[in-house]
Amino acid sequence: MNADAPAAVVLLSGGLDSTTVLAAASRQRRVHALSFRYGQRHAVELACARRQATRFGVAAHEIVELGHLGRLVAGATALVESSPLAVPKHAPSERAAPVSEIPVTYVPARNALFLSYALAWAEAIDAADIWIGTNALDYSGYPDCRPEFIAAFATMAGLATRRGVEGHAIGFEAPLSSLRKHEIIALGTSLGVDYADTISCYDPIAEGDRVLACGTCDSCRLRREGFSLAGVADPTRYAPAT
Amino acid sequence: MNADAPAAVVLLSGGLDSTTVLAAASRQRRVHALSFRYGQRHAVELACARRQATRFGVAAHEIVELGHLGRLVAGATALVESSPLAVPKHAPSERAAPVSEIPVTYVPARNALFLSYALAWAEAIDAADIWIGTNALDYSGYPDCRPEFIAAFATMAGLATRRGVEGHAIGFEAPLSSLRKHEIIALGTSLGVDYADTISCYDPIAEGDRVLACGTCDSCRLRREGFSLAGVADPTRYAPAT
Repeated sequence: MNADAPAAVVLLSGGLDSTTVLAAASRQRRVHALSFRYGQRHAVELACARRQATRFGVAAHEIVELGHLGRLVAGATALVESSPLAVPKHAPSERAAPVSEIPVTYVPARNALFLSYALAWAEAIDAADIWIGTNALDYSGYPDCRPEFIAAFATMAGLATRRGVEGHAIGFEAPLSSLRKHEIIALGTSLGVDYADTISCYDPIAEGDRVLACGTCDSCRLRREGFSLAGVADPTRYAPAT
Repeated sequence: MNADAPAAVVLLSGGLDSTTVLAAASRQRRVHALSFRYGQRHAVELACARRQATRFGVAAHEIVELGHLGRLVAGATALVESSPLAVPKHAPSERAAPVSEIPVTYVPARNALFLSYALAWAEAIDAADIWIGTNALDYSGYPDCRPEFIAAFATMAGLATRRGVEGHAIGFEAPLSSLRKHEIIALGTSLGVDYADTISCYDPIAEGDRVLACGTCDSCRLRREGFSLAGVADPTRYAPAT
């Protein structure tokens, strides 16, 4: 962490993508990491986020409690604990295919909300920019991961804030936008990311004091394929195939 | 409340503007009212919001706890309780003038965050639209009250959500946008709003079990002038001039 660098807010879930962004941002910014507990099934990711934030020497790390959000949207997404919907699983032999429609793990307006919270903090600390690990190639078909969403958010943010009105709008960096999953893994590996301490699984399984990735949700499949294509040993602890 | 009407999310602070919007929306929508406790000095407004929601027979009213936000932005706005900054006051004899710059009571990215939360709820309940009481004439110079901000937010929301991608984006209604304060008061009066049970003051004063408006902040001045111009008796309980 460079104490003289400009400040930035980095959205950090504790997953593979956002931890890679944390590593990249840390080279250029005084990082203020921001995480959310919104009732996600995989809230164990926040322990990874905490350790990764420490590892990269961030200036601050805030975990925002948004459990109320999870309750309000529980009927519309499988990703929160209180949802009656199940996270879709696939046979391990089935090859990951591009998702052609928005899956049930989409959380309504999640990235708009997370970025808005980041925007408030960024303006309060006079940050140069906000970093987010969205990518639009090997992803799950979420509308709020597309570059056109990020661009529209930046336009809105310029109009919403004092900073925008005063002519030095807060920037938005989505450095993974045009990378495939294996390229993200290669980038993070070159930046010293310990992927063993990241979680991508939407539906992890507790086993004693360890957590195992299910290996069969969309996110696990994309991650596993990414390590394979990158030629990097996959450090993920998967549950035994049933 | 019309049980067969389309659902809508209405942002309800408990102030004069949002209560007027609540009254207007209630004629056409099954209202889901949404309020926020973010550490504002005038959190007493939430009791007004609760009573107004009941009075207009809303289908649901949620008060979201965002105290963490108030702590993060306390250095950048006078409007939150934990801020070291003071709410600016004016001599009662001084006529309210248009604010030419953004005042210290601006809360970073507040409307972007509130609208994003509303967007999540609106998508989860399949609401037709989101209603907000921003207005750009007799207001305090906040960037996130301008029609161009609301329009940019709507564009972003269309790209952020399943609803937008599927071609039936959630709408945004800001029916007070082009009204002066006295016109808002006239509208609300015609819709049966009890303005005695709304609070606009940024810095209200507790007096026993009552709350008095300071009478000298920007918001009190705009409100007082509005009642005067509307020719409606001002039911506000102001603190005695010091």
